[in-house]
Amino acid sequence: MVYVTRKGHFSASHRLYNPAWSDEKNQTVFGKCNNPNGHGHNYEIEVTVAGDPPQETGMVIDLKKLAEIIEEELIERVDHKHLNEDVDFMRGIIPTAENMAIAFWTILEPKITAGRLVSIKLFESANNFVEYRGE
Amino acid sequence: MVYVTRKGHFSASHRLYNPAWSDEKNQTVFGKCNNPNGHGHNYEIEVTVAGDPPQETGMVIDLKKLAEIIEEELIERVDHKHLNEDVDFMRGIIPTAENMAIAFWTILEPKITAGRLVSIKLFESANNFVEYRGE
Amino acid sequence: MVYVTRKGHFSASHRLYNPAWSDEKNQTVFGKCNNPNGHGHNYEIEVTVAGDPPQETGMVIDLKKLAEIIEEELIERVDHKHLNEDVDFMRGIIPTAENMAIAFWTILEPKITAGRLVSIKLFESANNFVEYRGE
Amino acid sequence: MVYVTRKGHFSASHRLYNPAWSDEKNQTVFGKCNNPNGHGHNYEIEVTVAGDPPQETGMVIDLKKLAEIIEEELIERVDHKHLNEDVDFMRGIIPTAENMAIAFWTILEPKITAGRLVSIKLFESANNFVEYRGE
Amino acid sequence: MVYVTRKGHFSASHRLYNPAWSDEKNQTVFGKCNNPNGHGHNYEIEVTVAGDPPQETGMVIDLKKLAEIIEEELIERVDHKHLNEDVDFMRGIIPTAENMAIAFWTILEPKITAGRLVSIKLFESANNFVEYRGE
Amino acid sequence: MVYVTRKGHFSASHRLYNPAWSDEKNQTVFGKCNNPNGHGHNYEIEVTVAGDPPQETGMVIDLKKLAEIIEEELIERVDHKHLNEDVDFMRGIIPTAENMAIAFWTILEPKITAGRLVSIKLFESANNFVEYRGE
Repeated sequence: MVYVTRKGHFSASHRLYNPAWSDEKNQTVFGKCNNPNGHGHNYEIEVTVAGDPPQETGMVIDLKKLAEIIEEELIERVDHKHLNEDVDFMRGIIPTAENMAIAFWTILEPKITAGRLVSIKLFESANNFVEYRGE
Repeated sequence: MVYVTRKGHFSASHRLYNPAWSDEKNQTVFGKCNNPNGHGHNYEIEVTVAGDPPQETGMVIDLKKLAEIIEEELIERVDHKHLNEDVDFMRGIIPTAENMAIAFWTILEPKITAGRLVSIKLFESANNFVEYRGE
Repeated sequence: MVYVTRKGHFSASHRLYNPAWSDEKNQTVFGKCNNPNGHGHNYEIEVTVAGDPPQETGMVIDLKKLAEIIEEELIERVDHKHLNEDVDFMRGIIPTAENMAIAFWTILEPKITAGRLVSIKLFESANNFVEYRGE
Repeated sequence: MVYVTRKGHFSASHRLYNPAWSDEKNQTVFGKCNNPNGHGHNYEIEVTVAGDPPQETGMVIDLKKLAEIIEEELIERVDHKHLNEDVDFMRGIIPTAENMAIAFWTILEPKITAGRLVSIKLFESANNFVEYRGE
Repeated sequence: MVYVTRKGHFSASHRLYNPAWSDEKNQTVFGKCNNPNGHGHNYEIEVTVAGDPPQETGMVIDLKKLAEIIEEELIERVDHKHLNEDVDFMRGIIPTAENMAIAFWTILEPKITAGRLVSIKLFESANNFVEYRGE
Repeated sequence: MVYVTRKGHFSASHRLYNPAWSDEKNQTVFGKCNNPNGHGHNYEIEVTVAGDPPQETGMVIDLKKLAEIIEEELIERVDHKHLNEDVDFMRGIIPTAENMAIAFWTILEPKITAGRLVSIKLFESANNFVEYRGE
């Protein structure tokens, strides 16, 4: 079995905010990430697919195809968007990196055409990243 | 003369929009950067100061001091902010990277305590950056 | 379960040296890393905490809090230090990256306030890194 | 147990091509990677060895030794080479990153002098990488 | 005046070889870069355009436009190609990074639609790069 | 004219300390960089040579040769060393990055065999670097 990873990039803004809480509690828990006008990030995503490369192609999944799936199913829906306002599949979800990775798994997992999805890593900044493995 | 550079980082959102134009023209010129809810970036800034290091310290400018100036005068005013909505010194300015670099120069240049400011580089993403040298 | 990683950075010097051995044997085994005056590195550390993000916050652990723990419990005790001379919890331990990662786990594991520590990666240079998973 | 990783770098060219197929089918499956004159990459490899660091050295494997093994057994055989034409152990294998990682495992696994090989990661570009764990 | 830089990436193979020389002299001068089957690189290019950002757009040049120019005029002609065999504008030129940067300037300079081209940087590997400024 | 840059890497430790000053003044000016046992860095150096590439080679300077000069004349004298204690050409000089870049210029400038040295950049950490251009 070989693990194949493809990276993607997008820019988006978000606000960490729980509507069930008071403004004070939101400020205490989320700090400057709670700024009402939002703030932004250049996100990087790593999508890993595992499988056994067939002898005739030597490829677990065609990387051009994997790149297209990531681009069309995911990046086009979040790039240059406000995650709380503009992205349907994030409605009602606090857009932390953790919740984004889980939501992205739900979007991408049924679209993978060869091998199987085993990991989504989401880098929010140079110093923070999360990983979801579908467990 | 030696050139000393210190990096800083901040996350912000912005919208490219000229209020003197129609929505159609804004969309044509700025494309997806014109999304009304804004989108975001992890910005990286490089501030370069030039001078002759005195023999007794060997430092053009104390890097701790330069880091503090960048942090207090600039980063705290833009980090986790919406550049069109929340930043006073960007009022009335379209927040392209070019205009941001020029505005940052105006903010930082009078605060440099040793040597002289010679360059501000602003990285908007892994693939784009701008430089302003005060010329 | 989601894995959340936060990076930290510090600069330190060390000397690889086993006091039970002759100078010749130390030189043979550790080579230029045995230089008596020490040599240094910019270390990078990645601390990974795993957990289930609660619905009300969407965060396994508050990243500001995790960053503070790493900074206060670990970085302040090793940054700009000589690991053999200045760091109490490294006394009697040869400061290889392997031993440092294990010692850092012992320091950080009881301080993690949400989720559980699952990995410490320590990058000694652009070309070398180690990982300890508490096993 | 600690996981120790050493990176290496090499430049090579390759052509993705299945000789059992027609030119049309090769073009359809491999696209521009099927260019008859080949194209090239700066590859990066990460070799991970796991073991228990003995108390007297604190090292799973001497990193100088691991670097030498990677250099002499692998890099010298592939660096500045055409993988389809010049590398004996790649004969008859389509040089995808997946197949290269498996072939490199076969080369390196018996040469590791301490600990045991647990992972080979091969980065083909800034956006693609594969991992083989011998499973 | 502001300097705006856009990066691009391509993979290619090349062979350093002077047809006016003997095989021995080629081997002595170009070493392993003279391998007859070629070898390859992931090249990175930085194209810098300088100008005064007009008030109504705040942009020296539309980055989408600059990215398109780099992609269509340059990258499509060299990506996944053998520089000695497949690229018309490199005929008769030894494809060192120096000569590539000069040739790329000739290709790109007349295509820049706003501002003026001031620098082309070409990164051949993590450790080597060249810059041409049209002087 | 083309500018050719080659990178090098070394690890070293240093202490910022002016022997003409009291301990208090050293602590005030240099802060934790004044730790008596020293601290360390992974330094990165970029050496830039400018010239006109001759038609028969297309190279300003043979990169293998430039790499050897940097390795033999500079890196071997500072790698895994304590800059205050072990490096003859740094005697009596406070080892700030500024002073190191100037000293390295003095070492390398007469050794460059083709083109002329135009810049030395020295990166002390991910966030700080200095440049000296011989002016």
